[in-house]
Amino acid sequence: MRTVRITSADNKAVKTAKKLLTKKGRDSLGYYLIEGPKLFAEALDNDADILFAFFCEETADVAESLLSRRRALAEKAARAGADVLLTTERIFRGISGAETPQGVLAAVKKPVCGAETLFSRAGANILVLDRLQDPGNIGSLIRTADAAGFGGVMAAAGTCDPYGPKAVRAAAGALFRAPVLFVRDADEAADLLAAAGKRVAVADACGAVSCYDADLARDIALVIGNEGGGPSKAFAENAFVTVGIPMPGGAESLNAAAAAAILMFESVRQQRGAARQ
Amino acid sequence: MRTVRITSADNKAVKTAKKLLTKKGRDSLGYYLIEGPKLFAEALDNDADILFAFFCEETADVAESLLSRRRALAEKAARAGADVLLTTERIFRGISGAETPQGVLAAVKKPVCGAETLFSRAGANILVLDRLQDPGNIGSLIRTADAAGFGGVMAAAGTCDPYGPKAVRAAAGALFRAPVLFVRDADEAADLLAAAGKRVAVADACGAVSCYDADLARDIALVIGNEGGGPSKAFAENAFVTVGIPMPGGAESLNAAAAAAILMFESVRQQRGAARQ
Repeated sequence: MRTVRITSADNKAVKTAKKLLTKKGRDSLGYYLIEGPKLFAEALDNDADILFAFFCEETADVAESLLSRRRALAEKAARAGADVLLTTERIFRGISGAETPQGVLAAVKKPVCGAETLFSRAGANILVLDRLQDPGNIGSLIRTADAAGFGGVMAAAGTCDPYGPKAVRAAAGALFRAPVLFVRDADEAADLLAAAGKRVAVADACGAVSCYDADLARDIALVIGNEGGGPSKAFAENAFVTVGIPMPGGAESLNAAAAAAILMFESVRQQRGAARQ
Repeated sequence: MRTVRITSADNKAVKTAKKLLTKKGRDSLGYYLIEGPKLFAEALDNDADILFAFFCEETADVAESLLSRRRALAEKAARAGADVLLTTERIFRGISGAETPQGVLAAVKKPVCGAETLFSRAGANILVLDRLQDPGNIGSLIRTADAAGFGGVMAAAGTCDPYGPKAVRAAAGALFRAPVLFVRDADEAADLLAAAGKRVAVADACGAVSCYDADLARDIALVIGNEGGGPSKAFAENAFVTVGIPMPGGAESLNAAAAAAILMFESVRQQRGAARQ
């Protein structure tokens, strides 16, 4: 097992990891960071391309069960071709994006996703992120899309980076599976979606049609708009339907990730209903 | 209009506000903090009991439209009996829980909620928070429960404080409307729910019954368990059903707030279906 012990913050991998905390660094290097043993194990299970993995040096207050898990992960990572790097706690904290670091951190290659990857599964639905700003929402949305069996995610320019630390944490492994395609704007998105035979359904608190009355079962591109401003006009103009969620209570609107979850699983419910008929 | 200008961090209201940033302070004083003009306006609209309101002094980079909105809110707050306090930016930042403070911050009385308040509406569903830890999830859950017309929220001991700054922000005004009752444990919850005629439905990723096959329309108490550990045994033992969400995709589980949103709105869908028959 190639294990290298790092004690200097001037180490090249440490500097690379710090760069990956920024969007600019992720864009130029093509990698992103994942943290924690759970996500790391899932990256290995999903054959993610791991450049290097940092393990925080064993400290007195870490339970033996956790340490043995870390050792097993380190061995597995080394077998998969990753550089395994042992660091001091001070250095580890400097590259960790977490409030309470869990001792494992790795740089994973950002998958290259083209239209053919995004649309590879016939009939699959697509989630479209239209200038969403909250990284926690973005991660949760991608996680839900993965769980709902969506074919993938399209992120329009102006959307916060899905590969940032908070979004990666909230996505809980979905980024290893769900293809994410970045597009310039609503026009490019509309062209790609039309060519792939997807029908655009825009989610809007003031939606004209109740989601329970709209046909959302298959081949839809569900557009979720900016948290404060809602969906872009350009998407609304290309939509076959603007769907709302009937809200019997006092609130005017839902959190974007909650609303999207309701709509994506209304699609799942309709698929199940169709399968029974 | 009683406006007092505060320039010292030793001011009593400043000290009180700082105490309200901690759970201990909120519990002992019976108030919580809200931030931003939107939430503040909603507090006034919902006749929330406001002790004092801080407005950050006008700085050069604040737009006139925002300043006039602030002045209007300050006047309305003063008419409602709140102390209106003008502070320097330095003091304001010291009491703000936000990364980018929006210049308005107020102490609002925590509503006193007993079982009779929580169960006041016949047939209404109840959301039960079972040791949830993420304040963003908790706020989003309460917001969704409010939107879904749930009668209120029961928070079991071990649940993170719904009146903390992050949860309050994520609840987006729902705390002014949704009653929140705190209970010691699952046993106390079960007794109260049984007495009120509510049927306990526990959400679980490994749920035995699909949410589309369970009767969730009315008089249910939907239990959402801890993000990592799932629901308590004590709740599961008292449940008439353990509901899961069928997930056709690759993910094993959903974010707690997303799962709860799907289940609460499956209840709304069933209510609508029943109303049509």
